[in-house]
Amino acid sequence: MRHLIDFGDMSRAEWDALYRRCSDIIDRPEAYRDACRGKVSASLFYEPSTRTNFSFQTAMLRLGGSVFGFADPNSSSVAKGETLKDTVKMVSGYADVVVMRTPWEGAARAASLYSDVPVINAGDGGHMHPTQTMADLTTITRLRGGVDGLSVGLCGDLKNGRTVHSFIKAMEKFQDVKFFLISPRELAVPGYMRDFMREQGMWFTEVTGLEAVIPQLDVLYMTRIQKERFLDPLEYERNKGIYILTRRKLDRARDDLLVMHPLPRVDEIAVDVDDDPRAVYFKQARFGMFARMALLYDLANQPRMDPEAVEIGRERVCSNPRCITRTEGYLPPLVKRIGGVDCCAFCDAPLR
Amino acid sequence: MRHLIDFGDMSRAEWDALYRRCSDIIDRPEAYRDACRGKVSASLFYEPSTRTNFSFQTAMLRLGGSVFGFADPNSSSVAKGETLKDTVKMVSGYADVVVMRTPWEGAARAASLYSDVPVINAGDGGHMHPTQTMADLTTITRLRGGVDGLSVGLCGDLKNGRTVHSFIKAMEKFQDVKFFLISPRELAVPGYMRDFMREQGMWFTEVTGLEAVIPQLDVLYMTRIQKERFLDPLEYERNKGIYILTRRKLDRARDDLLVMHPLPRVDEIAVDVDDDPRAVYFKQARFGMFARMALLYDLANQPRMDPEAVEIGRERVCSNPRCITRTEGYLPPLVKRIGGVDCCAFCDAPLR
Amino acid sequence: MRHLIDFGDMSRAEWDALYRRCSDIIDRPEAYRDACRGKVSASLFYEPSTRTNFSFQTAMLRLGGSVFGFADPNSSSVAKGETLKDTVKMVSGYADVVVMRTPWEGAARAASLYSDVPVINAGDGGHMHPTQTMADLTTITRLRGGVDGLSVGLCGDLKNGRTVHSFIKAMEKFQDVKFFLISPRELAVPGYMRDFMREQGMWFTEVTGLEAVIPQLDVLYMTRIQKERFLDPLEYERNKGIYILTRRKLDRARDDLLVMHPLPRVDEIAVDVDDDPRAVYFKQARFGMFARMALLYDLANQPRMDPEAVEIGRERVCSNPRCITRTEGYLPPLVKRIGGVDCCAFCDAPLR
Repeated sequence: MRHLIDFGDMSRAEWDALYRRCSDIIDRPEAYRDACRGKVSASLFYEPSTRTNFSFQTAMLRLGGSVFGFADPNSSSVAKGETLKDTVKMVSGYADVVVMRTPWEGAARAASLYSDVPVINAGDGGHMHPTQTMADLTTITRLRGGVDGLSVGLCGDLKNGRTVHSFIKAMEKFQDVKFFLISPRELAVPGYMRDFMREQGMWFTEVTGLEAVIPQLDVLYMTRIQKERFLDPLEYERNKGIYILTRRKLDRARDDLLVMHPLPRVDEIAVDVDDDPRAVYFKQARFGMFARMALLYDLANQPRMDPEAVEIGRERVCSNPRCITRTEGYLPPLVKRIGGVDCCAFCDAPLR
Repeated sequence: MRHLIDFGDMSRAEWDALYRRCSDIIDRPEAYRDACRGKVSASLFYEPSTRTNFSFQTAMLRLGGSVFGFADPNSSSVAKGETLKDTVKMVSGYADVVVMRTPWEGAARAASLYSDVPVINAGDGGHMHPTQTMADLTTITRLRGGVDGLSVGLCGDLKNGRTVHSFIKAMEKFQDVKFFLISPRELAVPGYMRDFMREQGMWFTEVTGLEAVIPQLDVLYMTRIQKERFLDPLEYERNKGIYILTRRKLDRARDDLLVMHPLPRVDEIAVDVDDDPRAVYFKQARFGMFARMALLYDLANQPRMDPEAVEIGRERVCSNPRCITRTEGYLPPLVKRIGGVDCCAFCDAPLR
Repeated sequence: MRHLIDFGDMSRAEWDALYRRCSDIIDRPEAYRDACRGKVSASLFYEPSTRTNFSFQTAMLRLGGSVFGFADPNSSSVAKGETLKDTVKMVSGYADVVVMRTPWEGAARAASLYSDVPVINAGDGGHMHPTQTMADLTTITRLRGGVDGLSVGLCGDLKNGRTVHSFIKAMEKFQDVKFFLISPRELAVPGYMRDFMREQGMWFTEVTGLEAVIPQLDVLYMTRIQKERFLDPLEYERNKGIYILTRRKLDRARDDLLVMHPLPRVDEIAVDVDDDPRAVYFKQARFGMFARMALLYDLANQPRMDPEAVEIGRERVCSNPRCITRTEGYLPPLVKRIGGVDCCAFCDAPLR
């Protein structure tokens, strides 16, 4: 693995090796104190994401490496009048690894075409956020011994959540996971995710209530429901209580349940849940740091490498308005097949 | 000592030990070059304070540790839709020590209830700024051999200055300090500070002129007078010259006087004073860095520790509008006795 | 050399030594991994300049040192109500070297009068940018074995470009360099640069077309033409194509030509040039990092030193509205002779 753009690019064997490394770092952090000594990570956050940014920064620092970069585009002139390619060429001349967060879908893939050093996708718009998935899987594997065979409840806004979709997609690498999809009808998982689960032979059921299914769960993955997602605000007011996790609702759950959340939470988990040993969302954030340490350990120590020249794009092929190819016109017109359909190789949107 | 929230929490013996450490760092900085190697400090500045921020950052870097964080809330999404508790839980999962500056009184105390690692108060509104006091005491002790028995002039706005109040309170740990309080009448020390000095048996006198008392001083602590503090702007214009320290006024001072200032200065000390060997305000800033090194040396090397669960607050008990309990509703209703009065344990304001 | 304010302050021997150090760092970077261990660089960017800032930061990090500072004045309260002198006194108390970028001409020279540690000018308005020149010379020397005797084309806006003027001035240290100055007539080099080249006995010719001279060049230094520089926008539209470097124009150039650019480029070099081995502008940025490593290696390891007291300025002597002496009134009225004329020693403008 040279870059990490999409969790799906990794084989099960690669993930297992990465997890073993991560687990070893958790057990013996002092053994990794100089693992990236002399290495420098570029942290390019084109939109603010404090949690992810802090997690990557501390991951690198705890390996003995160092970090430079920007935390949002306003505090930087990089974005101004320069192509993504030129920024990446420049930055990859200074750094040993590039960590990148953008509002544009496919931007990390685009950057990887031009970078002399490995690129890590720290979130590209609503598209991918592979290290969040790594944090989630590390938490479950570390605390439950593995992911195979678990019953996982996903609760909240399952329609718009990038975290949830990435998590479901990652499950294709595991066996016999059962999904309980808990959401208001209007925020249910999109049709293509349902198709995906059917194709992969995953067991799933969709419900609107949390309390009835809680006793069956090994993992309850909570997500935020944003008021703005409801067409009818009254509908929101009627529904929101159903999806708030309280200590009382936890009474009927298993003793070894894991309550997870990508954070930040607003009020979808009551504060009194925090002191319950089953609440592991703050641990999950810390596990995310260790997972990123394992990843940086692998990637930041790779040699510099001149990327091969790629075709220069002459016209737009992708019609997704949030795709990186819309603003960076020189990108090559790369296509990939997803489920028999020609898709943009940057943002995965079907080509018309 | 697990956290540093208030200088008053420290015993004289603890301060003396900290100063000895600090003094050793000043004498042998190279011996401490790896003292915090592998340790990471979180620098959470919810309001900008370049001087304090730089001082803490360089203190950590000079111990071989590293730093991450934000320098003001706008360049960060942390403040957005997340409780202080959640931010602290997250950040203390990544860091070995948390340095925190906020506009809210009592915020560092609040953070210490939830943090897995030590919290240092780098200023919480107008309430406390314990490391400024450490910088002041280090300067005096290092340059005059000790604090006991000195005659200290405090000059400028003694009504509103957090620095001045903290300094006076810290003097309860020392013997026979004499205070010359030099200010316009409308900016004299508040009544409760006067009460405090009387209770502690401290010698003090209040005067409006600087020149008459200068010959008697071992230390002259200058502070800024802000024009806005005067009800009558003409009064300001009439008065300001009295409190400006010039080379000429210094003529009658002792040869071993220390002229101090917390910085930034505006024009309360004339530029020609800078070249006088008695002007130690720039040294004072540098001593502040060494004092913070001593503090970080102690705190950043402590083991992680799950804090004990605390009561969840259900209603506001403190009526101070700047108290952290006003915005963070889940904080426990902690009370402490100050001079026989029930006070908020976060901001020290008397409860009604 | 204690500070680096102006490339011209360096002798040829000093530059040669610096280049040898730089070249050794490029060959054996691992030998310098701890060369600045325990040293701290202050990065004071009073205006954003991501490229220069990143280059200096990574240079220090790759020497095992560390960095603190601000990336633009808005994210800092330093600029607020404090003189440059006081900021420098404070910061030089914390740091081992100060890297400074300002919009004010002569600011780095001013800072060097008060700093306890070496000051590096990372650009002071339109005045000087010595480390850009170092990056340029390193690129040429490393890739062509030397600078003496080369034919150098400078193309674009030669009237307003600080980079170009610095480069030409630096050539006084080298032998037999031939200049091809390629620009629209209204953006030709200013008269005083032409005088300078004549005084120094430099060979130069001025042309308006790029294609005719390309075959004769060893180095083609491209710069950006800003539309706003043209009095007549139609003139810009008519001209811009002439100065855009394309793969086709390169067909007639030598095989060992170096195409350089200070970056960021907008469209003055077509994207398809990037894959030509003669395009070295991204390498040039990386060489800039190595050149800054050599400089920091020398300067950050120098001992602290109390600067001698300087005269306090009482009135303005320089009439350049962008000169640092206009806003920092206490600066001494220093004068230097340039070509027999009395000039401001900060900004080099002739005094009236």
